[in-house]
Amino acid sequence: MIATTQQNMTTELQELGSIDGPPRNWKGIGIAMVVILAVMSLVILSVILLTPESHLLLHSHLTMEDLESAEFRVYDPCVAWLNENEVALRTREGHILSFTLNNNLTTTLLDNSSLDLPMTKFQVSADKRFVLLAFNIRPVFSQSFTASYAIYNVANDWQEIIPPEMEKAVLQYASWGPQGNQLAYVFDGDIYYKASVTSTPLRLTTADQEQNVVNGISDWSYEELLLSYVSHWWSMDGARLAYLSINNSGTPVMEIPHFLGGLYPSNVFFRYPKAGSNIPSVSLFVVNLYGPAHTLEMMPPDSLRADRYISMVTWISSTRLAVRWLNRAQNRSVLCVCEATTGACSEQDSPLFSADGSVFYTILPAKQGARGEFHHIAGVSAQQPAIPSVPPRFLTSGSWDVILLCALDEKAGKYFLSTEESRQSRHLYVDLDGVFQRQCISCNLIDGCRFFKAEFSHNQTHFILYCLPGIPKVTVHSTKDPSYVVLEDNSPLSKALEDKSLPETLFRTFPADNHLHLKLSLPQGYEAGLLPLLIIDGVPGSQSVTEEFALDWLQVLSSTHSVALAWVDGRSGVGRGQKTTAVDPRKLGSLRVKDYLGVIRLLMQLPYIDDRRMALYGKAFGGYLTLKMLTATDKLFQCTAAVAPITDFRLYAAFSERYLGLPTKEEHAYSIASLLEEANKLKDENFLILHGTADRVHFQHSAELLSRLVKVEANYSLQLYPDEGHTLREPRSIQHFQRTVVNYLQTCLKHSVLPDPIEDEEEED
Amino acid sequence: MIATTQQNMTTELQELGSIDGPPRNWKGIGIAMVVILAVMSLVILSVILLTPESHLLLHSHLTMEDLESAEFRVYDPCVAWLNENEVALRTREGHILSFTLNNNLTTTLLDNSSLDLPMTKFQVSADKRFVLLAFNIRPVFSQSFTASYAIYNVANDWQEIIPPEMEKAVLQYASWGPQGNQLAYVFDGDIYYKASVTSTPLRLTTADQEQNVVNGISDWSYEELLLSYVSHWWSMDGARLAYLSINNSGTPVMEIPHFLGGLYPSNVFFRYPKAGSNIPSVSLFVVNLYGPAHTLEMMPPDSLRADRYISMVTWISSTRLAVRWLNRAQNRSVLCVCEATTGACSEQDSPLFSADGSVFYTILPAKQGARGEFHHIAGVSAQQPAIPSVPPRFLTSGSWDVILLCALDEKAGKYFLSTEESRQSRHLYVDLDGVFQRQCISCNLIDGCRFFKAEFSHNQTHFILYCLPGIPKVTVHSTKDPSYVVLEDNSPLSKALEDKSLPETLFRTFPADNHLHLKLSLPQGYEAGLLPLLIIDGVPGSQSVTEEFALDWLQVLSSTHSVALAWVDGRSGVGRGQKTTAVDPRKLGSLRVKDYLGVIRLLMQLPYIDDRRMALYGKAFGGYLTLKMLTATDKLFQCTAAVAPITDFRLYAAFSERYLGLPTKEEHAYSIASLLEEANKLKDENFLILHGTADRVHFQHSAELLSRLVKVEANYSLQLYPDEGHTLREPRSIQHFQRTVVNYLQTCLKHSVLPDPIEDEEEED
Repeated sequence: MIATTQQNMTTELQELGSIDGPPRNWKGIGIAMVVILAVMSLVILSVILLTPESHLLLHSHLTMEDLESAEFRVYDPCVAWLNENEVALRTREGHILSFTLNNNLTTTLLDNSSLDLPMTKFQVSADKRFVLLAFNIRPVFSQSFTASYAIYNVANDWQEIIPPEMEKAVLQYASWGPQGNQLAYVFDGDIYYKASVTSTPLRLTTADQEQNVVNGISDWSYEELLLSYVSHWWSMDGARLAYLSINNSGTPVMEIPHFLGGLYPSNVFFRYPKAGSNIPSVSLFVVNLYGPAHTLEMMPPDSLRADRYISMVTWISSTRLAVRWLNRAQNRSVLCVCEATTGACSEQDSPLFSADGSVFYTILPAKQGARGEFHHIAGVSAQQPAIPSVPPRFLTSGSWDVILLCALDEKAGKYFLSTEESRQSRHLYVDLDGVFQRQCISCNLIDGCRFFKAEFSHNQTHFILYCLPGIPKVTVHSTKDPSYVVLEDNSPLSKALEDKSLPETLFRTFPADNHLHLKLSLPQGYEAGLLPLLIIDGVPGSQSVTEEFALDWLQVLSSTHSVALAWVDGRSGVGRGQKTTAVDPRKLGSLRVKDYLGVIRLLMQLPYIDDRRMALYGKAFGGYLTLKMLTATDKLFQCTAAVAPITDFRLYAAFSERYLGLPTKEEHAYSIASLLEEANKLKDENFLILHGTADRVHFQHSAELLSRLVKVEANYSLQLYPDEGHTLREPRSIQHFQRTVVNYLQTCLKHSVLPDPIEDEEEED
Repeated sequence: MIATTQQNMTTELQELGSIDGPPRNWKGIGIAMVVILAVMSLVILSVILLTPESHLLLHSHLTMEDLESAEFRVYDPCVAWLNENEVALRTREGHILSFTLNNNLTTTLLDNSSLDLPMTKFQVSADKRFVLLAFNIRPVFSQSFTASYAIYNVANDWQEIIPPEMEKAVLQYASWGPQGNQLAYVFDGDIYYKASVTSTPLRLTTADQEQNVVNGISDWSYEELLLSYVSHWWSMDGARLAYLSINNSGTPVMEIPHFLGGLYPSNVFFRYPKAGSNIPSVSLFVVNLYGPAHTLEMMPPDSLRADRYISMVTWISSTRLAVRWLNRAQNRSVLCVCEATTGACSEQDSPLFSADGSVFYTILPAKQGARGEFHHIAGVSAQQPAIPSVPPRFLTSGSWDVILLCALDEKAGKYFLSTEESRQSRHLYVDLDGVFQRQCISCNLIDGCRFFKAEFSHNQTHFILYCLPGIPKVTVHSTKDPSYVVLEDNSPLSKALEDKSLPETLFRTFPADNHLHLKLSLPQGYEAGLLPLLIIDGVPGSQSVTEEFALDWLQVLSSTHSVALAWVDGRSGVGRGQKTTAVDPRKLGSLRVKDYLGVIRLLMQLPYIDDRRMALYGKAFGGYLTLKMLTATDKLFQCTAAVAPITDFRLYAAFSERYLGLPTKEEHAYSIASLLEEANKLKDENFLILHGTADRVHFQHSAELLSRLVKVEANYSLQLYPDEGHTLREPRSIQHFQRTVVNYLQTCLKHSVLPDPIEDEEEED
């Protein structure tokens, strides 16, 4: 075509030239040329300005290659409070610095030349004389890891932590205490204490290895329950250490096959309570560190002598602890205040938070008229003995939720994060002395930031703000004046993203029920097209509709392959009210399927959504949901990617009991919830299962499903990651995973585009 | 189109009808109609007769559904010799009968009404008074199984075999002895003997369970080596029992993950020597059964005191045994004659077979001029002590192989199977007294049968012939006269196949090297088309180019999807000569790849083969070869299905050492042979890996490969069969496997068909 046009133009010019006319008016020609050029420039300019997808000419799509390049990575400086006036942080270059807030001075604690180990974690001692470094870190489950630990003397040199009578050791954990350079570490299930770096270590516990006891760190169950590997807590003055002792002698052993690297398999065995099995028994001890060490057990409430969990431990003064105990079904919690000096614990009637000692502050649900219950700050009397009849006094009120109590200051007030601005935002507030008055600290503070995380210094003189939407930023603020220091603004990432056309994000709540919240990510210029849709299934109890920043394969799918993304928070989600507390937990799965399908039906009516090109994605419980949705529909979704799906809650952890009860009693509920008995409904659906063979949602789940799918001759695809866990570790596995999912989804969503929208109705049947 | 034509015709008829003419000549019209009908019938008939693919109109394609229906199954009546004149067999209906040859009388030993257990095995005692039935059979490895055993008294009733001091037991094996109803069984690694059904059992061995010793049955290694689960041998007179005692205390443990059915995994542990690991130690004992039991060890040759295998044990008289010992590298064998009464063994200089005692007959390679070495029957002197210098005397000669010595009759001669007619055939011959004279017994005996298996009665008065090509048949013959009785002709299968268009089979040998043999299965009418080609990769040391009958998914692929099938026997294959004995076994893999590619290049030149639609299929070593061929070529094959591929011989059994040597010494050879180090060459190839997670070619092989493929972002498909072994057991798994492979191959081979063969050259680039 181009060649032809050029030829025609040439011919025309020749024809023009072949006519003999009067001598040429060169000035006129020149003016005409200038006018023509000016007009053309204007036309080009207006074309650029008026094209609705003008950015497409200037901005490129976000690609998988972008994700894999260093400049597109978010950098976390790992800021930690040293004292009211100083933080420790690690620079991009790997130096560990201390930063003094009142004079903006930085001091190098550890030069990057001393740090040629990748993946190190650091902690600076309270007296800033030592840096504790973890290296050779090997993750175990979701939170846990083993590591070698070394102490770097800021003035001098290295010293590795070696337990007594050992030559070399990989520890389970090590950390500084709150005073000087006191130190505790866990090795082989036992806690060791060093009063200072140079003191001889004191062994605080003697775990019975045969009995599968660990002290001070979480086993598999407590990692999931506390969401922390560390299960020991220093009192503020460093005089006492509280720790959990977790006994797994009665818990059955789970074995995870490991295939790689050896001639013979080197499978991993660990204690893992499946639904209905024995759970670990747990006790809370406090050991006295100053003077001769003696240890006292904090006595559990009479009603929870057996089959109990501990879900929270907090020091509320130098000798008193608040402890939350849970029954096995996790539907009843008992809050106690324990006297560390005697081990006596007294029950409190509701969850609480620390204050000076007479009143505790905590977050409790409060009825807000017809709009349902919302979470607010309550002050609870903590007199000893507790008076159960005194009702809690609420300090905040409104149809929004307090998400987290960050700090308590007797004079300045209580600092908290709430959803007052919008359900998907998180702003830092401080309550004012007058009842129900509060002031937003983070609102309009940093441009484009509506989702914050805050970390206060011990005496609340300063706080670190993590701004999570847009480009993540880390800033340090004073509680006295509005000035602040930027510790990290991720400017290389900002720069990298400048040229990229990222999806736009919309939030919607469906007022018909008021419990369905939706986040839509739409590629630039979405109004002009008819887009395929991917629904991302989340986990119950967590909120996926937030403004938190993310940059992963989903954004690539949207940016490069023009796919609309939707996240849904249904019933049982957190954030902004919970009207439907009467939901039968055993029906959680089916309710969420109903909620999702309701939202999807609304999305299908959007003018820019192609309802014949819809897909699902989910992981673990989300993977379960995606497949459950396939069983509930008939070819509504063109394709589905389920990662490490739970296929039967009997095979999942004892935590299943929270929703479904004991398998022996609730056999029917487990059967109804199971995917295995509905595998035949997956026969004609198109889906991809991805599973790491060492996943903590055991590969057993997929194996049981595959065996059913083979029986019904289902047509599915499979991708395995040998020896990989729930979070892929090998960078190549992550890349492969992302590319596999993106290729699978975009290939399947590319098809079934119809040329004529009028034919919609017919085609759908 | 059709509607339009009809309209036109109607219009024409109306036009014709509208013309007013003379009154109609009804007689003339009638005659014309008859003539027209007759001509049309002739035309139709000739069209049917002259169409080159006329069978397509009459015969249907063989489909996957056919394979799954009962009438397409080969029935095996499990015929066994009872004495010179009687066989036992099981009918299709499940009755166990004895059949007397000289009067064609059948006697029911066991009625099917007593046999409502599926998958039973039966043995009739020598005195025909008892039937031994194995039920509740659970396969273990390839040959082994456990079962419950019951004895059915033909006159009376049942009796289950229970070891002493047990209530109930699943045995490892049980079998009749050659006399009366004497019986031996293996339970928990120990052999028990009953002089008669009613005698108390006598425990013959005391295995040390802690030492992992088994007596009389094979462990994993011996199952593969002897290809038999049974490793005890009765002397002909029933007075002695020889057995292997296999000690695995030094062999490392292999663990196979099992995923299904339990809350927690119930993995299977067994002793499995990988290349370079400790192998089981083995000893041969003979126990005296008549009178007080006493046991003697047969002494191994001095040169094989440690790290040895026993690969053959045969009684050659009532007190003498022939035993073949192998060194660990399996490149040196020592043949001994052992005196069962003393345990003394004397070495023989070559493998041998039994005769009266002074001469043994065996099969040995013999040079046949320029055509290379072929296997022939040799007589070897077995004087005690052996005289090593006496050369063997050959009884047969020619450029063909003796495959098996079936029977020795001092008067009638030696009966043997050979490839004299053609390499892919197996006929039964008897050697005549004159040197190098022989007579074919099975040639032209049964129509269409050119591949036989024979089983002689003890005194060689009769033999059973199994005809394996075409429709399998079982017949009983006398060695005295040519009459025979048909025990099973699989007539239902014949009938079912009558209507089916099965592929035609061609055999070719490439004279350029004379060591490449090819079998081609081509769909009916293949000359007219341009067919895709599937090459099936086999196992070294076995012959895949034979006339043996097969009816499986490969025939469906050929019949229904018009795919040409090719089997290739390259170097190291058996059957008809072996000129290239000097091949370095360490290069076995690369040589076979070269052989295959050579044959494929020749196949590509056939006018009916589409060289742009070629695929590979292989299992275990074959799976290894297919992937190795992909690494050696660049997109030559459109697709490849590799089942349970060996990916690194280090991970495979110690038998790898036969080809590659000890891994410590031959590291380079193992690396060269490994697929893992070449995974990057698979990056752009299209292939499907299928693996049972409990396969004896451990899933570890695929896991290691997958982990490499993930790293190089290769584009492959995967199908797992949870808890299935090397041979799939669940009928649904087998169905799924066949359908998956057929769908994968036919979908991929369907594409890339070119409309114009002239464009071939361009398209290929």
